Amino acid sequence: MTDRTRRDLIAAATALATSVTATGAYAAVPTRKAAFPPIVHHVFFWLKRPDSKEDLDKLLAGLRTLAGIDSVRGIHIGVPAQTEQRGVVDGSYSASELLFFDDVAGQNAYQVHPIHKQFVADCEHLWQRVVVYDVKGVVP
Amino acid sequence: MTDRTRRDLIAAATALATSVTATGAYAAVPTRKAAFPPIVHHVFFWLKRPDSKEDLDKLLAGLRTLAGIDSVRGIHIGVPAQTEQRGVVDGSYSASELLFFDDVAGQNAYQVHPIHKQFVADCEHLWQRVVVYDVKGVVP
Repeated sequence: MTDRTRRDLIAAATALATSVTATGAYAAVPTRKAAFPPIVHHVFFWLKRPDSKEDLDKLLAGLRTLAGIDSVRGIHIGVPAQTEQRGVVDGSYSASELLFFDDVAGQNAYQVHPIHKQFVADCEHLWQRVVVYDVKGVVP
Repeated sequence: MTDRTRRDLIAAATALATSVTATGAYAAVPTRKAAFPPIVHHVFFWLKRPDSKEDLDKLLAGLRTLAGIDSVRGIHIGVPAQTEQRGVVDGSYSASELLFFDDVAGQNAYQVHPIHKQFVADCEHLWQRVVVYDVKGVVP
């Protein structure tokens, strides 16, 4: 993100914050959903060896290559955040891959893209479990 | 997202795509992680009445109000996307709330913000299950 882009996002957030009515009326509140492409593809990985920094680094390095796929419009790669431990929070995974696409076709193209196939071939021996959530953004 | 911001993101994506080496060498590939604030808070909701459009609309309306919380830097609200049915894909949830924060402090501020508390008070009777994933982005 360029500084300018970041400022735009924060400026938009500020504008929206001031648009919330005192009564919290739902209908009047716009969303910042439009800040992102509509299709979210969020994948969580559980390593076979969750304590292996080497395996985690290898997985993260592999995940970073996915940025090179044309139809990927945004990418966030991460690990569990140190937020408050609450019963509803699942912090047991090893790595997170969050991708944005313009449409389902973009997600389909990603699935069969050579870079994605290479990532799977290089890294699938590292994980024991994968959970995927595909989300379609809703228009306010 | 302004048109300019969107163009910036797509331009960055294009630049990255061309930076992937023919050998797919991992180290040389930057990520577009920096396009987003580092902390991701992704919540999935399962409605008590998953077939009730009324309940879903109420939940989505409640989720949209979260855009009004100052520390929320980005928001994407959605429902399961119609992607290919694969064993690893969990499409059983009713609604998805994806938020971005600058830091864990921002996420903590969100948890206790009056708008968030109002959302929980108004909508918690609608859901039977919630799963939360908090992610911290990793620097390339």
